Amino acid sequence: MRFASFFTRGFQRHPSCSKILLLCTLSGGGLLSYSESQSESITGPPASNTNSDVPAKKKVVVLGTGWGGTSFLKDLNASLYDVQVVSPCNYFAFTPLLPSVTCGTVEARSIVEPVRNMVKKRKGDIKFWEAECLKIDHANKTVLCRSNIGNNLVGSGEFSLEYDYLVVAIGAQVNTFNTPGVKEHCHFLKEVEDAQKIRRAVIDCFEKAVLPSLSDEERRTNLHFVVVGGGPTGVEFAAELHDHFQEDLVNLYPSVKDFVKITVIQSGDHILNTFDERISLFAEEKFGRDGIKVQTGCRVLSVDDKNITMKAKSTGEICSVPHGLVIWSTGIATRPVVRDFMEQIGQGKRHVLATNEWLRVKGCESVYAIGDCSSIDQQKIMDDISAIFEAADKDKSGTLTVAELKDVLDDIIVRYPQFELYLKSKHILDLSTLWKDSEGNYREEIDIEGFKMALSHMDSQMKSLPATAQVASQQGEYLARCFNRMHQCEEHPEGPRRFKGSGRHTFLPFRYKHFGQFAPLGGEQAAAELPGDWVAMGHSTQWLWYSVYASKQVSWRTRMLVISDWTRRFIFGRDSSRI
Amino acid sequence: MRFASFFTRGFQRHPSCSKILLLCTLSGGGLLSYSESQSESITGPPASNTNSDVPAKKKVVVLGTGWGGTSFLKDLNASLYDVQVVSPCNYFAFTPLLPSVTCGTVEARSIVEPVRNMVKKRKGDIKFWEAECLKIDHANKTVLCRSNIGNNLVGSGEFSLEYDYLVVAIGAQVNTFNTPGVKEHCHFLKEVEDAQKIRRAVIDCFEKAVLPSLSDEERRTNLHFVVVGGGPTGVEFAAELHDHFQEDLVNLYPSVKDFVKITVIQSGDHILNTFDERISLFAEEKFGRDGIKVQTGCRVLSVDDKNITMKAKSTGEICSVPHGLVIWSTGIATRPVVRDFMEQIGQGKRHVLATNEWLRVKGCESVYAIGDCSSIDQQKIMDDISAIFEAADKDKSGTLTVAELKDVLDDIIVRYPQFELYLKSKHILDLSTLWKDSEGNYREEIDIEGFKMALSHMDSQMKSLPATAQVASQQGEYLARCFNRMHQCEEHPEGPRRFKGSGRHTFLPFRYKHFGQFAPLGGEQAAAELPGDWVAMGHSTQWLWYSVYASKQVSWRTRMLVISDWTRRFIFGRDSSRI
Repeated sequence: MRFASFFTRGFQRHPSCSKILLLCTLSGGGLLSYSESQSESITGPPASNTNSDVPAKKKVVVLGTGWGGTSFLKDLNASLYDVQVVSPCNYFAFTPLLPSVTCGTVEARSIVEPVRNMVKKRKGDIKFWEAECLKIDHANKTVLCRSNIGNNLVGSGEFSLEYDYLVVAIGAQVNTFNTPGVKEHCHFLKEVEDAQKIRRAVIDCFEKAVLPSLSDEERRTNLHFVVVGGGPTGVEFAAELHDHFQEDLVNLYPSVKDFVKITVIQSGDHILNTFDERISLFAEEKFGRDGIKVQTGCRVLSVDDKNITMKAKSTGEICSVPHGLVIWSTGIATRPVVRDFMEQIGQGKRHVLATNEWLRVKGCESVYAIGDCSSIDQQKIMDDISAIFEAADKDKSGTLTVAELKDVLDDIIVRYPQFELYLKSKHILDLSTLWKDSEGNYREEIDIEGFKMALSHMDSQMKSLPATAQVASQQGEYLARCFNRMHQCEEHPEGPRRFKGSGRHTFLPFRYKHFGQFAPLGGEQAAAELPGDWVAMGHSTQWLWYSVYASKQVSWRTRMLVISDWTRRFIFGRDSSRI
Repeated sequence: MRFASFFTRGFQRHPSCSKILLLCTLSGGGLLSYSESQSESITGPPASNTNSDVPAKKKVVVLGTGWGGTSFLKDLNASLYDVQVVSPCNYFAFTPLLPSVTCGTVEARSIVEPVRNMVKKRKGDIKFWEAECLKIDHANKTVLCRSNIGNNLVGSGEFSLEYDYLVVAIGAQVNTFNTPGVKEHCHFLKEVEDAQKIRRAVIDCFEKAVLPSLSDEERRTNLHFVVVGGGPTGVEFAAELHDHFQEDLVNLYPSVKDFVKITVIQSGDHILNTFDERISLFAEEKFGRDGIKVQTGCRVLSVDDKNITMKAKSTGEICSVPHGLVIWSTGIATRPVVRDFMEQIGQGKRHVLATNEWLRVKGCESVYAIGDCSSIDQQKIMDDISAIFEAADKDKSGTLTVAELKDVLDDIIVRYPQFELYLKSKHILDLSTLWKDSEGNYREEIDIEGFKMALSHMDSQMKSLPATAQVASQQGEYLARCFNRMHQCEEHPEGPRRFKGSGRHTFLPFRYKHFGQFAPLGGEQAAAELPGDWVAMGHSTQWLWYSVYASKQVSWRTRMLVISDWTRRFIFGRDSSRI
């Protein structure tokens, strides 16, 4: 069933259906959107806590109100717990639209939803504090927080919260790879404030370039926009900026229109290299036609206020180019507070906080982590191979038949998804194929060594999940479902059998469903990778993009605002006021 | 005719007609709005300047893009001049809606129109530079400017512009009356950025106040909002904040709802003391019902980050009150660049830059000043009394009859508007009343002494114009009309006769037409002073306010945005995200 759902739950398999989908999603709030009514029905009436017979509710502290934290809160039955949320932002931002905010295609306020609007619906079951988490004190099960609100106000901003369960959904920070000058001289594109700053900075570049006192060379420098990183964010920003220039700025600043240049610097061989190759090529061709320079195989060595210095990987040549604005969009790194927590729990040597398949932090009974701040450490088949063999070998014969394996197959597939991925990748429809010996002859039974051999390549199918909104959001939903049914599932476990140890796991492990990804390329064209290896490119895909992004908005308010922003842009163009 | 127009050109004489007006203004762009089609038709095709036979166009430099500068540019036939505009803001802001921006009733972007959008329509006839004017060098007829754009960009931001005509429309700055701590610890409400900062600061106060680590006293302090200045801006802000609290924040921050307090501090005896007394009282009563504390007769001595210290004028008592946020909205002062210019032209001892009735700066042939940066120095009748007498005394008899005065009456009324105001204020319908002697007997003729006596109180009717958008905007329009017809009027003067000297003045002097003023008081109620001493208060006036403010937007884009913001607020409330 789970296997099948991978194919049937994709939202869209062919771009020709996009107009029908558009109608559905706009009218119904969408297949993929958070359903507000659903979350309300989950909530139920707040449980009274005044009766002394009722045991005190367990304290849940949630750090962060990004995709992970918000989707967790939306789906959590908050009346079951004493829920406290800490985040330095008092809003949730629909981050996939951030590149649109940089050019004013969409307004910043249209993509944010105040956390307190969501909290309000829970009638006091959730408490929110606008503060930053400074330290997770695992030994004492507390988090130390400090409010980052202007220091003209009275009262200490520091406080600590105790937890029974901690949900770390704190996200990640920009990875500068310790490149000198990046922090000081580059713009990032992770937060709403970043996008607003970029919008002002772009207009600044144009306003400065048209001043009467500048030389042509200076105008050219100020109008050189450099994007470091050819991932989806960087590419979308470059495309948005090009559109903004072609559709609006060229008419407002006609005297400098020939001096504008956009360069995308990518260390790999292609931009959008996490996408299907066809999309990479389509994007590179489109950028070529648009005059956006794509410089691949280049590593940035340093950035200062005037120049960006880089090295061509192939030739070793170093060159320095003057710029007006640099956007740094290369990857993510662990935040200091998470790093400190990792040290405490013996994960100090890892790059990123590791959780098990149930999103519980490894080495911590009561801490969960979701979204960009963590990574799932999938259990290897080869680590458990003896236990699996033993469990499957019901008659304790020391050998395994295909039929014996089939008896535990469902549990294996749930516990070790790489098993299924391996069969798929090798197009193995019949398990007895695994029983073949090295000469290709079918065997009736295999011993533990034969079993190890047969499964030895399966762990190579393990892939860590991308740091996307889609992953974080599904993790939040999954974790909320677990929290909602914790009591019930502890009595009646729903998870797969424990191959090591006895009984079953309490919950089914988290399983990510990839619904595809978009790359808007400007000029009302987009590329999309859809489930089932479908690839769509062009104008109809842009309309699909509009419809999906409209439908995925967290509230009807932001949905209305985003759609009206798009409409406004179509009618009046983008606003070039520098505010 | 001019006299009559005062009554007939009022936009609205009775509130019961407000719904009809609403329809008219929304559909037609409004009686009072800038007419875009009009300004386009004025522009005409750009005159070719390449032909060497054509004399070089005169250089007009405009400083500022506020109400004065923008309305001047909108109406100017830019093809007649070489027009350059300098302003540190690349947009025009519809400032009467700034108080609405502080609480998110209207978004900042909805009330701004990029200058370049207006410039674009003139097809290259107007050049705009985003820079600040540092110095007006009157002797060399140049202005020195510096771009205030981020210093990471290359090229000097300093340049100077030569002018044949200079239009100073640079506005004013906040007047702190040198009160200690005001600059450091108070918010102002003059610019769009100010409003955005206040919006964030209000949310900060609430987010800080709800934190778990604060005492009730600290919560109370952080939620004490103080408005210094009971003029229209301060009162409207207090009303907006109260609405914002009652309609939105009380639901989002229920735990601190009893700690919120708004205080308006006014040095005079009443708030809104430039309005009709009935409106003052209505506002004070409304604020009393709403729980907004109005503290009249109080002068602020100093402000620090925690407390505001004031003195009751009547008792001399000094008290200090803790605050979370102070809005300073008391009055305006001359900007340093204008002050420096005043020193150069011998106006150093004046408070504000003086112009004559044609908006030309006194002592400067080629400089005009409009809006808040200047004040019209109306010529006194008593200064010209002998010349007037002489001009009227056609038969040179040394005495004047009523008939003789009537012959020059039109010119007098145009040149000295206080004459007309005096007659109105004294309900004098018949000029022969002026010929009465001290015992009240009619005389046939009067001599120069009698004439002086009769007109002696007229100059007391001179009032300087208020520093409002309405005045600045009318001055801009007037000046543009003069510039458009300069050539024509120099040949055929349209102004009144020169009593001193011979001939006629080139243009009719500027005459302000007061279309009334509004004071929104919150809770969908407003007060309005309308032409003809009409006063309207209540809900229907708020609808009148909506319709007038929608109609007065400078473009269809901002009109649509403002109306959609109002609609959004009605449906979804205001956004409390801190961005």
